[in-house]
Amino acid sequence: MTDYSPPLDDIRFTLSSIADMAAIARLPGFEEASEDLVEAILVEAGKVAAEVLAPINRIGDQQGCRFENGVVRTPSGMVEAYRSFVEGGWNALAFEPEHGGQGLPWTLALAVHEMWQAANMAFATCPLLTQGAVEMLQAHGTEAQKALYLPKLITGAWSATMNLSEPQAGSDVGALKTRAEPDGAHYRITGQKIFITYGEHDLTENIVHMVLARLPGAPAGTKGISLFMVPKFLVNPDGSLGPRNDLRCVSIEHKLGIKASPTAVMAYGDDGGAHGSLIGAEGGGMACMFTMMNNARITVGVQGLGLAERAYQQALAFARDRVQGSDVGGNGDGGRIAIIGHPDVRRTLMTMKAQVAAARALCYRAGAALDHARGEPDEAQRARAQATADLLTPVVKAHSTDIGCEVASMGVQIHGGMGFIEETGAAQHYRDARILPIYEGTNGIQALDLVMRKLVRDRGAAARDYIAELRGELEAMDGALAGAARDLGAGLAMLEQAGDWLLEAAKRDRRVAAAGASPYQRLFGTVVGGVLLAKAAAAAEQRLAGGAAANGYAERFLRAQLDTARFYNANLLPQAAAHAAAVTADSSTFLDPDDSDF
Amino acid sequence: MTDYSPPLDDIRFTLSSIADMAAIARLPGFEEASEDLVEAILVEAGKVAAEVLAPINRIGDQQGCRFENGVVRTPSGMVEAYRSFVEGGWNALAFEPEHGGQGLPWTLALAVHEMWQAANMAFATCPLLTQGAVEMLQAHGTEAQKALYLPKLITGAWSATMNLSEPQAGSDVGALKTRAEPDGAHYRITGQKIFITYGEHDLTENIVHMVLARLPGAPAGTKGISLFMVPKFLVNPDGSLGPRNDLRCVSIEHKLGIKASPTAVMAYGDDGGAHGSLIGAEGGGMACMFTMMNNARITVGVQGLGLAERAYQQALAFARDRVQGSDVGGNGDGGRIAIIGHPDVRRTLMTMKAQVAAARALCYRAGAALDHARGEPDEAQRARAQATADLLTPVVKAHSTDIGCEVASMGVQIHGGMGFIEETGAAQHYRDARILPIYEGTNGIQALDLVMRKLVRDRGAAARDYIAELRGELEAMDGALAGAARDLGAGLAMLEQAGDWLLEAAKRDRRVAAAGASPYQRLFGTVVGGVLLAKAAAAAEQRLAGGAAANGYAERFLRAQLDTARFYNANLLPQAAAHAAAVTADSSTFLDPDDSDF
Repeated sequence: MTDYSPPLDDIRFTLSSIADMAAIARLPGFEEASEDLVEAILVEAGKVAAEVLAPINRIGDQQGCRFENGVVRTPSGMVEAYRSFVEGGWNALAFEPEHGGQGLPWTLALAVHEMWQAANMAFATCPLLTQGAVEMLQAHGTEAQKALYLPKLITGAWSATMNLSEPQAGSDVGALKTRAEPDGAHYRITGQKIFITYGEHDLTENIVHMVLARLPGAPAGTKGISLFMVPKFLVNPDGSLGPRNDLRCVSIEHKLGIKASPTAVMAYGDDGGAHGSLIGAEGGGMACMFTMMNNARITVGVQGLGLAERAYQQALAFARDRVQGSDVGGNGDGGRIAIIGHPDVRRTLMTMKAQVAAARALCYRAGAALDHARGEPDEAQRARAQATADLLTPVVKAHSTDIGCEVASMGVQIHGGMGFIEETGAAQHYRDARILPIYEGTNGIQALDLVMRKLVRDRGAAARDYIAELRGELEAMDGALAGAARDLGAGLAMLEQAGDWLLEAAKRDRRVAAAGASPYQRLFGTVVGGVLLAKAAAAAEQRLAGGAAANGYAERFLRAQLDTARFYNANLLPQAAAHAAAVTADSSTFLDPDDSDF
Repeated sequence: MTDYSPPLDDIRFTLSSIADMAAIARLPGFEEASEDLVEAILVEAGKVAAEVLAPINRIGDQQGCRFENGVVRTPSGMVEAYRSFVEGGWNALAFEPEHGGQGLPWTLALAVHEMWQAANMAFATCPLLTQGAVEMLQAHGTEAQKALYLPKLITGAWSATMNLSEPQAGSDVGALKTRAEPDGAHYRITGQKIFITYGEHDLTENIVHMVLARLPGAPAGTKGISLFMVPKFLVNPDGSLGPRNDLRCVSIEHKLGIKASPTAVMAYGDDGGAHGSLIGAEGGGMACMFTMMNNARITVGVQGLGLAERAYQQALAFARDRVQGSDVGGNGDGGRIAIIGHPDVRRTLMTMKAQVAAARALCYRAGAALDHARGEPDEAQRARAQATADLLTPVVKAHSTDIGCEVASMGVQIHGGMGFIEETGAAQHYRDARILPIYEGTNGIQALDLVMRKLVRDRGAAARDYIAELRGELEAMDGALAGAARDLGAGLAMLEQAGDWLLEAAKRDRRVAAAGASPYQRLFGTVVGGVLLAKAAAAAEQRLAGGAAANGYAERFLRAQLDTARFYNANLLPQAAAHAAAVTADSSTFLDPDDSDF
């Protein structure tokens, strides 16, 4: 019942119709990403996900991690699975060939990540973090740092962590207190960090902690923060491991979900200071960390997608299997049917399916923007793609993780009473999913990022640009999709008006703009998801017109794309107007009352 | 952090402004329910909830129930808490005085239940079931059965269970196979039942199982089902306990939440047949069980309300306490504020508060309908109130439990990373809440009940009647609420149109009507919740105009009612249009595809 079957057709079709992998493969540097190679990678990754990672997802939840004397032991099978993951070269897909990467597009890496995350999110959180660190080191490290660390991080022989939070500094990173004292060419790090995912574990021979800290005399707030690379074991100049660094895992948390992923409290410098090397400029820690976080935020969106797909598959299998009740439209002869035959169950399944498809479209589209931002020969084109990637990052993170939670909850519901029993497995997805709207910046923070940094800072330019691009895509739609295109055009108009309203509000009172941030983000995700699904449906229609068999997809698969888009349009897109109303609603009802009036 | 503080002002104000307790107290039979007595009961119940039940909520979750050799041991403190609950007479509030009940209105009993459920839902599920059984016995039992069982069930000295589900018969009760063979004046029961809440435990000296079973030669489906009362220990004619009956607990489930509430697999008749007595007529089991379930469904709605209130209180306390970040509208001097100062956090808190208030209004209003259905002197008035209660029952159950889950999830989110750590307690509410949309008939079943039994069966008469009643209440609103009344009037029109559409659809194709059931139920709950909140706000406005102090409420409490209603109206009511669109959307997109196309 908890099997995972890689949805290769959905992945392929989204890659081609939404992310335009063919165009990405034409960019300089991505020539390797031929259709054949992409196909081979997807098929092979699917096997690893289904055969290596998925089978240990449940036992990982049951056993959790054990902590004894500073050592963390991951659940049964994790060490072996991680070894096979590294040996397969799976960690290296999207990185620079110079240090051992395969130089493939992020879009492809995200599609592969979807399968890792669906198969075993607790496991795949480890490479997610390592990959964010690689991105960051590639962008901000010195040549020496890159040469010493990247080869091991790119293969995954070593893992990496992000150390931001402290007890008094969660979303409020600027409040952190961890100190860094210069000591020759290096620094001595002292402080405590909390919520460090994979802060300590037994999967790799070394763990490289990326630690935000303050230099002596640094200014208050985020401007005074620098980033340090602090390995568990010091690294000799020849790359071999040296002595143990002055850091330790104090404890691990007892969590609601992703129990196979250890969440550590880390102590640095109990014995005089942990040895760290500065990355980037002094006081430039947040810029470096944002490179890492932006990468991680999109991949966390992909976690939401993967988990939702997994929950959908499990619910669908149950609904096909579970015989209960008779056909509500039948003649009352009492013949029992599988519950997938009940209209309300079908509505729920279709809602799950459409939300998964919309999240996939959003995630891959953001990946494509990243690849164009890296690979376009023309600078203006690169900048435009980067602006799109920046705009979409908070939407991908927040919208896909909200969907992850909602779909996991629907998955429990489809199972009825069985869904509440842990042995069924549906409840694990519900528990695991709940971290996603929280970590890597809560979804409230994403919404604020979207409004304050992505919308207000450039006075709406990137948002208007992107809306215009989507309008262009709608214009091409006719036939069965003409009605959908009209509704979606109205949705885009709402999105634009809500954005304009927020721009005006921010001029008057930033609190009023902030009050509308979350519904704006939901509006954004709802409308853009709908446009992308309609685009996929239009591509399916074209293929059907051109003779489906020749294109490698079954005719019924292509027809299903049309049903999914039409369902979304009629049943989910109407929520856009509700979100738009909430953006522009008078916020004095909740901004003005005294705190004690809540 | 996990304290519970009974929201007495909210409860009182909802009782008076929404449920009109004064009118209930004027009904024959409820004369006892004076304002003073109601007040005394609320205050005293609040103390029990806060001081006896709430403190053992967390340890109950941590320890869970233990099962050994057929015996279930509840977590620490449960036995003592239950004893004090019984000794306080709390189980007996709403029952007939003839057998030891206090004859008080259901509305009051539900208000008290809100506090039990908020304090400790796993505990309070036990009296919830006992009380459902008492209602059922009062309505369908023989005088002898009543005399022998009611006194002990009404005090709570004995508890009761509902035995419907079997492995192949969950929502599909008609598929059950448990057999009953006549044996003199009694019956021998043989079969296995699953998901039996409090099927075995150590809180009471006897457990009375209400078991659905089939007599020899009974027709297939629900028409062939009869109800039997099967006590754990046989009861001697003098009311003392006799020998152990032939039934046993086979195992208990390992669940996502409400871990202090044992969910049992029960085996009847391993040794020749458990001794049972028939309740009601042969083949009349479903009618009896519906009396029990309808009572339980409303109280399960109250569970959703209570849990949401608890989650809200915890999130609010955290938001007031947790200092993080600076004022988004501030001058950037970096002064740290409590997160309740952040607009997005305030929006979330206000959403929680408004949904809790709407659920409370719905639940108490349904309680009032039950009391009028019982107490109105005029038969037509009784019938009209009963029709309203019947109509509202599935809405109360489904809407309030959906709110329970959503608000519990928001509660986790407000806590950020701490919300995912079990020690914080927010995660327990999230896990506990998840059973509510499932048990006592899944929310999908509630929606079908609403459409097929409550709307279609009387051709929309009760729904139109109730909508007209709500319209009347809107007409009285002016001043600050005139705009809200207009929006709510539009919402009622949508509800009426959606109902008419479903009535037409059901004539053509019952599957199409069933496909719109869940969004119709959400539309119903959303609009009616809004009307009731506006009614509360109008009552607050009146009191303010009349001089607040004289009425026992603080002026700021009354002003907050207006903010809550206006917030709901502007931010949550707009979802009604989205639900209405989904009711009437072309359902062929999910009804027509082949099962294999999902």
